[in-house]
Parts: sequence; structure tokens; C-alpha cells
Amino acid sequence: MTLTPEQKAEIDAERAEPRPTLRAISEGMEKRLYTAHPVLDHGFVRVIDYMGNDAAICQAARVSYGRGTKSVSNDEGLIRYLMRHWHSTPFEMCEVKFHVKLPVFVARQWIRHRTANVNEYSARYSILDREFYIPAPEHLAAQSTTNNQGRGEVLEGDEAARVLQILREDAMRSYDHYEEMLSQDGKKGLARELARMNLPANIYTQWYWKIDLHNLFHFLRLRADAHAQYEIRAYADVICDIVRDWVPLAYKAFEDYRLGGATLSAKGVELIRRRLAGEAITQENSGMSKGEWREFVALWGDAFQS
Amino acid sequence: MTLTPEQKAEIDAERAEPRPTLRAISEGMEKRLYTAHPVLDHGFVRVIDYMGNDAAICQAARVSYGRGTKSVSNDEGLIRYLMRHWHSTPFEMCEVKFHVKLPVFVARQWIRHRTANVNEYSARYSILDREFYIPAPEHLAAQSTTNNQGRGEVLEGDEAARVLQILREDAMRSYDHYEEMLSQDGKKGLARELARMNLPANIYTQWYWKIDLHNLFHFLRLRADAHAQYEIRAYADVICDIVRDWVPLAYKAFEDYRLGGATLSAKGVELIRRRLAGEAITQENSGMSKGEWREFVALWGDAFQS
Amino acid sequence: MTLTPEQKAEIDAERAEPRPTLRAISEGMEKRLYTAHPVLDHGFVRVIDYMGNDAAICQAARVSYGRGTKSVSNDEGLIRYLMRHWHSTPFEMCEVKFHVKLPVFVARQWIRHRTANVNEYSARYSILDREFYIPAPEHLAAQSTTNNQGRGEVLEGDEAARVLQILREDAMRSYDHYEEMLSQDGKKGLARELARMNLPANIYTQWYWKIDLHNLFHFLRLRADAHAQYEIRAYADVICDIVRDWVPLAYKAFEDYRLGGATLSAKGVELIRRRLAGEAITQENSGMSKGEWREFVALWGDAFQS
Amino acid sequence: MTLTPEQKAEIDAERAEPRPTLRAISEGMEKRLYTAHPVLDHGFVRVIDYMGNDAAICQAARVSYGRGTKSVSNDEGLIRYLMRHWHSTPFEMCEVKFHVKLPVFVARQWIRHRTANVNEYSARYSILDREFYIPAPEHLAAQSTTNNQGRGEVLEGDEAARVLQILREDAMRSYDHYEEMLSQDGKKGLARELARMNLPANIYTQWYWKIDLHNLFHFLRLRADAHAQYEIRAYADVICDIVRDWVPLAYKAFEDYRLGGATLSAKGVELIRRRLAGEAITQENSGMSKGEWREFVALWGDAFQS
Repeated sequence: MTLTPEQKAEIDAERAEPRPTLRAISEGMEKRLYTAHPVLDHGFVRVIDYMGNDAAICQAARVSYGRGTKSVSNDEGLIRYLMRHWHSTPFEMCEVKFHVKLPVFVARQWIRHRTANVNEYSARYSILDREFYIPAPEHLAAQSTTNNQGRGEVLEGDEAARVLQILREDAMRSYDHYEEMLSQDGKKGLARELARMNLPANIYTQWYWKIDLHNLFHFLRLRADAHAQYEIRAYADVICDIVRDWVPLAYKAFEDYRLGGATLSAKGVELIRRRLAGEAITQENSGMSKGEWREFVALWGDAFQS
Repeated sequence: MTLTPEQKAEIDAERAEPRPTLRAISEGMEKRLYTAHPVLDHGFVRVIDYMGNDAAICQAARVSYGRGTKSVSNDEGLIRYLMRHWHSTPFEMCEVKFHVKLPVFVARQWIRHRTANVNEYSARYSILDREFYIPAPEHLAAQSTTNNQGRGEVLEGDEAARVLQILREDAMRSYDHYEEMLSQDGKKGLARELARMNLPANIYTQWYWKIDLHNLFHFLRLRADAHAQYEIRAYADVICDIVRDWVPLAYKAFEDYRLGGATLSAKGVELIRRRLAGEAITQENSGMSKGEWREFVALWGDAFQS
Repeated sequence: MTLTPEQKAEIDAERAEPRPTLRAISEGMEKRLYTAHPVLDHGFVRVIDYMGNDAAICQAARVSYGRGTKSVSNDEGLIRYLMRHWHSTPFEMCEVKFHVKLPVFVARQWIRHRTANVNEYSARYSILDREFYIPAPEHLAAQSTTNNQGRGEVLEGDEAARVLQILREDAMRSYDHYEEMLSQDGKKGLARELARMNLPANIYTQWYWKIDLHNLFHFLRLRADAHAQYEIRAYADVICDIVRDWVPLAYKAFEDYRLGGATLSAKGVELIRRRLAGEAITQENSGMSKGEWREFVALWGDAFQS
Repeated sequence: MTLTPEQKAEIDAERAEPRPTLRAISEGMEKRLYTAHPVLDHGFVRVIDYMGNDAAICQAARVSYGRGTKSVSNDEGLIRYLMRHWHSTPFEMCEVKFHVKLPVFVARQWIRHRTANVNEYSARYSILDREFYIPAPEHLAAQSTTNNQGRGEVLEGDEAARVLQILREDAMRSYDHYEEMLSQDGKKGLARELARMNLPANIYTQWYWKIDLHNLFHFLRLRADAHAQYEIRAYADVICDIVRDWVPLAYKAFEDYRLGGATLSAKGVELIRRRLAGEAITQENSGMSKGEWREFVALWGDAFQS
């Protein structure tokens, strides 16, 4: 990630000037504000603004007049209760705004989360920068042989080299042609809204993205998950770190009840109960399909393997 | 509106303690924070938190790295351009959280605005207070004779007195019975979630309500409008004053392009053009239905009346 | 539930006239259309329209050109896979529209589900009917002594009789007064939008409610749950029966993975693993709070009780 | 647009088999179902399903038990009233589901409309086809010299030829490389979710897109507008034709009050009034900025030009 000196100066200026406010504060988030946290080769995540903190979640749940005299341990118990029982509205009372720089193919997955506000840099109006995502060698993965929607081993040797060559050369060539089509040097110059169509999906775009904490947790549960594509997970992981600093109690509850938790089907509950009662369970007597059984055993391990 | 001494103390405590932040500030909103602005006889609106200001709208529209060196007059022009051309996403980048106390029948209209976050005081969990909305004499209006959905003249004399007597006595009696059903004095006591069903729609409830500026403007356009029921308009008017202090440039653009503006149909545009070209327009040659013509003339006045 | 002869005739007329369509059909749903399914003492649920069926879910998941040659067993496997892995968008491709008659206090809970479309009967515009929810004796429950938000034993004898007397008399009196205030007999008559404020929360209202299948499942998971208030659960239960007829494969997957399933925290997963490995688990060595442990034991039973 | 024989056969099969239903029907829409309406060089719009018709809008607005005995002219008056007064909920009671094939850069604009349901063909899971949007010569426009976000004159001669050459060659080369990277012929083959990043934004994707009529009208107002990019407007225009066949009364009201109408600011209203009162208005005495005045004069023409 490289910022121009002007961009660095703007960020420094934002961080230089604390002002008094009567609003709820998160000390952990104040330390994060404006700084560009690098992701992938040219991307970043910056916190631009936030609303609320752990106490604000409790205050909303209680519809209270002030911060009250409740202790931190009371707040933690309440937050865990709310998370456990899917009371989502108090978490919606916190809000955060990010500035994100990301490849277009990641942006296309990301935007499918509809309960957020977005302002994207407009390639109809402006000219995109010459910045493309080229995977690091350890992320250059083959198609998975068992999962149509996943990755397998890392590519090696000539194959890896050839892929990197293609990605680099096509990116540069398409950008050269983008500039050539736009150029008004001795000609009219193609409209920006048309010229952009020549750019591949690994070019970087950027946006302001604002979301409430409940919907952000939902985003993180899906995108910080092992099944998510690595390139979006890299962003989700950085955001997880930021949220831990922002609302430490809520994040801990989220880790326990969502990220690290598991969802069982009625069948799964029954199998656990039968196993706890001493019965030996196999796929044959489980009533589960092969796919479902594979996922079940992956979670519970030895106790369910013959 | 009466707050208990405890509530006042909590609000004072919230206002007493400014802390440093690096976030965007709105001076006008800092002055508003936490204070209860009275509405109707027992209701209020309190700002609990806010995110963003006029500059933040521009910053999002520009997807910029800092506040930039743009002048206030640049910002005003940009905000007016965004509002005029229905670019809604930059306005979504500001957020506000209110604590509102309001009669249930007003809450039922209000909640129809779905693009907001709400935590309501729970009458399943807690006991409601003995507070009911009783209209001031000047708001005790008769059914409109021309509009099925509106009010006409103010009631007077015996009729007004009788209505007030009914509203007051039924409110007190229903609340007495609510308490009697809940009472565990020598008996089990009815569940709160059932006892509440005896309470009339003018009882007060309260909630935390959080919404972005774009959707708040939409709410205000509909609810600060002359066709809105007076009791919800009273809340919308107070919120308009608050928003003017929060984001003065955006509010001014909202007033000009939405609140004070007008929407013309294709037919309406054509009639104005014909009139500007010198033609005399009547309902007969307008092509409009009677209802539409009445509304059209109400807007344009003499120039369209014979 | 009583329908007027006119209402019955309208419903019969709707059911009398099949017409040809090229759209996807659900035989089970055709049988349900328009009929009023009774709920509580005066309420009902009627299916007004629907879009899609089990095959349409698969078709959307495959973004296919036609219904394809996929077998029903393929479809079932795909639907179970989608449900298990929280792929919600194909379920959003089915839609249903209900006409519901329900008490206002139930409507107030219901409307909190924001991802639906609603047209409610307007008491600003029209006059409400004299119909109130009076609980059947077996639903007249006391406040729970262990759960602030729940019900305990059923009221009996004098206490039950007194509660029913209050609910009935207050309902009738408030409605008499509503009519008296509205009356234009020798006077102006109070505006409808004001007179309604005297009506208690057990009066019936009605609305058209339209929602997609994914969000309907979310509604049903929360409202057909044992923790939901009985009066809204009664509606959710009827809707469950209807959805089972509409999309039998999707409903079965919903029952297995959501209604009958369980969500475990990271701690819960660890406890199960420790127990499966032979360790004796008590609240003391569980690391869970008392409340969480109580819920955990309620799910897993003997194996976790000393 | 070219469909494979299999796709054509599937569409024909869908159209061949009318079945009886009790639901509301739109004759105009039945004729449209499943057929692929061509857009751009390889794209299309197909109606997959619909719910409701003009009568259903009125039925919802009236929360009625049946279709009632209201005449078509009553329905038209009601629909026009609802549209004029921004009563959006009855229009939300109709729903439509499309299958759309479109270039990725169009899809990226389209998806910004969040109040819709989408299932997109997955390039993580499947391999995209070799189909790219290449503009017809008459749509190969230069950058506008007055509007940063628009098009100017059409490119000609060598410049046009060179742009077309670039777009064609880069598309083919990037697709050749996509296939080469995916190939498992003597090597592992790059994961699909990575290989796709080499493809430019004019490649075609496809999705199922479902939306209610109110939000569809909002989409069409923005995207069938002269300021929308031509390539998305081409889709919006085809959808307009389809909606006209589906709900003719609602579409006519939409055309009159939205598509063909105009929104005036408070200043604009005042200027019209002053002009109608005989005053000569110029930019100098208008109080409008140059940009706003230019747009105002473009709407009202001669009457406001000196």
C-alpha cells in the first residue's frame, strides 16, 4: 500500500486535532481513526467515523435516560444475553464508517450485503489509478478438487510463473489501452464511462462504507469464515481487529456465540444426544447425507468416527 | 413534560463531561445533546448521538482522504447539487440517534418508516407509566367534511368538554384496571404482556430511534407536511429544528428542494407552459380530474383561476 | 371469527374462477388461496397471492433458463444444502402476500420485522369495527416468577373472572365512547384520527402483508418459538402450516436446520467435546454463567446433570 | 443475442404449458413470460414470474376481502391518487422476477439499488462464457466537454476504429488467458475465483433479479432517465415496455407523475409565480446559481429566456 505525500498529510491533519465532544467515546477506536490499515498488495481499511460503544448498546437495550450506574460486569452480562438470544436491535444502535480500497472482484462480493451505505469512487466521473491486485505466490491457489467453490493446493514452478506473467501483463496492457482511449491528444477521447469497460476485475476501486454493528457482525460471520474467498477474508480479518478495539465486550460475545460457535440441525442435536447416551453413530445410522455427515464429523471429530 | 429528579440528574451528568475526540464535530448538535425537547403534553425528543456534519457529506461524495482544502462555499454548492439531482448516498453517510417519548398511536404511524433502527421500551418486560396524551383544546378538531383523512374545525363548548372528559376518565380507569390486573397483592397477577392490552392508544411509550440523514429527510418531508396528523407533525417540527443546527447547509438545501418545493406531473408541466405562452387554462381544458385540478390551483393560485 | 355474508361472497367469488397461467404453480397453495384461516377469537390469516415454489428456489440458485431436467431428489438436496450453508438469496426468490386480522398489540410486535411490505386498514380514514381480543380462560396466564418477559401459571377462580370482566367491560365502554365522540348527531363529531386514541390495544386491526420466503422463515423462527408471546405464536403456527403446503421441501429443511436445530457457543461446543471425551461437566467447571448453563442443560438434559 | 438450442428449448417448454390458478392474472404479462427480450449485443431481459396486477394495487390500498365491484375507472382514479400523493405501499404489493444478462460494468451500477433480491451466476463456482459487450458505432461516444459524468459527440474514423480494435482484442486475449489459467491440461489449473480477476468489465454476467413495483418504478425513474448511462438505459427502456403491459394503469400514472413530471425547488416555484405575474426573470434576478438556472431554463424554455 502506498499513499501519496498529499494523502499522508491529509490523514495526519485529521489525527492532529482532537476536539471536545459530549458524545460516547471508544478509546480503542480513537486510536484507529483515519489511519490506513494495509490489506492485500495495494488495499487498505480506514475508520472514518464511529457512533457508540459497549455502554451505548446497553443504554439502548434499557431505553435509559443516561449512562446509569450499571457496572461493566452488568454490561457484559447484558451484552452476552442479547447476543445469545438474537436480540439484534441494541447492536444496531452502533454505527461505523470505513474508507476501503479494494479490488473490483472483491467489491462485487462485498456489495451483496445490502444493509449498508456506500459511496464508491466513480469511474464515470473520474479516472481510475493504475493499481491492480496481483496475488502473493502463497495465495496463487489451484481449483479445489472436492469443492466447486474453493481453492486447493498452491500453484508452483512454471505454472505459477505463467499465471503471474499473464496477470501482470494483461493488467498493464489494459491500463495502457484505457489511457490511450481516454487521451484527448489530437483526438476527442472516449467517454470515461465507456473506457473503463476495458479494465479487468483486479483493478482497485475505493469507497466509503457505513454499517451498523449488527449487520457488520453478520458480514464478518460470513466473510471472516474459512469458506470465504481469501481476498475478502483479508479485509474481514482486519475489520475484526478494529471492532475488537471499538466494542471489546460485544466483540467477545460475537466471537463466542457466532464466530466460534456452531449451528446444529434437529438431526445433529439428536445424534449428539444419542452419542451422549452411549450409542455408536455412523453415517449409515445417522440419517444424514454424505455431505452433511462429512461436515458433522469435521466439527465433532473422533467421537463420531469408527 | 416532567422528568423525575433522577432522570434530570442523569441528563445533567451526560452533559457535564466533554471528552476529546478526533471525529467530525457539529457545534450546533453538541449544544443539543441529551437535553429533552418537549413535544405535546408529556412527550420529548432527545438527541443521544450523531455521526457526521456538512463536511462529512462532501467528504463521502468525493471519497476523499481528508477534509481537504475545499471552502464552505464549495461545500454548499456540492450539497445543493447532490440534493437537486437526488444523489442520496452522501446524505446516508450521516447518522443520528434519538430518544423519543410519544403516544402509542403516533408510534404506530412513525414505525412505518422501515429504514431506521428502533429499541422500544418493552411492556412485556416492564410496567408502563401513567401518562396519556390529552389534546390541548385548540387541537381538538372535528372530522374534516371534505377530506376523509383530515381534520376540520375545532370542537367547542359542551362537545369539546365531553370529549375531554371521556379521554381523561377512560385513560385513568384503564390504567387503574391495568394496575389492578398486574397486582400480586393476595393473588397471582396477570402477565404484563397481557395486562397491557387494556391500555388505550394515547398512553405514552418511548424508544431509541436511529436513522441516517437521507432517510430522516424522507421522514421529515412526509411528517412535517401539512397533510400529516398534527400529533406526529409536532415531533417532526422539533426534529427539523435540531437538524438545522446539526447540518445547516444540508438542511437549507432540503428546505429549498423538498419541503418548500413542488412536484409537477407531465400534465402540470404542460399547463404551466401553455399558461406561460398566454393561453387561458380552466379545469375543462386542463385534462385534469377535479381533485388534481383543485390541488394544482391551490399551488399556483390566481394565474389559473378564471 | 365471523365474516359478513358479503365478505364470504367475495371470498367465494375469488375461489370460483381458475384462469390459465404460465407461471410456476404450487398445488398446495392453490388450495389455501383466499380462505380465512381462524386465529384467536376474531382473527384470521388469508393467503392473497404467492410467487414461486420449491422448483423456483432451485431455478434461481442455478440461474437457469428453464425448469431443467433436475429430479425432485436433486432439488431436495440442493435446498438442504442452501439452508445448511445460509445461502439465503434463492429463498428470497419466493414471495407471499397475506391478509391478516389481528389485535393491535400483536400488530405492534409483528411490524418490527422491517423487511416486509404492509398496507394497514387506516383508522385515520375509516372507522374500526367493534371487535376485541379476549383471551380464552386457558391463556389467561400470570406473570412468570422466573422470567421478566414471560408467563407463568394460568389464573383461576375470582382472579380470572375479574380480569375477564375488566377486559370485556373496558373494551365495550371504550368503543361506546369512540362511537359517541365520532357521532355527528347534533354535533360536529371528533376527527377519526383523534377518536381512535381511546381504543385499547386488544382491538382488532387488519393488513395486507407481503414478504419473501427467506424473511418469512426468519419471522417464523422467532415467532413460532416457545419464547414468543402466545398471541403472535398462534399466527406463526398457522402460517407454518401454510408454508408447509406451499414449499414442502424448503419447509422441511427449515424445520430441520432452524426450528428444530440449536445454536451452540464456542463454549458450548467445547463442553460437548469434553463430555464426549468422558469428562464430567458441572456449572462450576463449565465456565458458563448460571443463566447460560440453565439454558444449556435444558437443551442437553441428563448427560450434563450430576 | 444468441441462445443455445437447449436454452431455446427450455424457454419453449416453459411457455407451452398453461396451468389453472386462482391468483390474480395480468394478460399482458402472460404474453411476456420467459421470452428473451434482446438488449445490447448479447444481453436480454426475461420475465420469470410476477405477482399482482392493477386491481391488486387497489385491493391492497383498500385492504379488501375480494376484488370488489369497483370499476376500472374507479381503479384508475385511485391509482393516480396514490401515485400523486406518494402512497407507495400499495405499489409494493406487486412483485416481478427477471432473468437478466448484462455486462459487468452495467451490473455494478444496477446492484446499487439495494431493495431487490438477486441471485447472480457465480464465477467462483462456474466458468463464464466468452461474450463481451462491444458498443455499436453510434454509441461510441466521446467524453462530454461540459459534463464530467456524461457523453458528447460520437467518435469517428480512425479513432473509432482504434477503440473498437482495442476493446475486441483485449477481450479476446483476456478470455484466452482466462481459459489458459483455468486449464488442467498437464497442470493444476488456477482456482476459478482467482482466474476471473483477469476478465474486463465488458464481459457478460447474468442474474435473477426480483423487485416490487414501487422500487422498480424508482429504479426506472433513475435509469430510464436521459442522464443515465446509455448501456443501463437500454435495459430500463425494455423493462418500461414490459411494465406497461403488466400494470397499464399504474404505468400510465408513473409516466405522468414521475417520468414526464418535474420537481421544482422553492425558488423554482417562486420564479414561476413571478413570471406568471408578469415579471421578466433573468439569472441575475433569479437567485439561482448558474448550474441551477441552466437546468431551469432547459425545462421551461423561451418564457425564461431574454
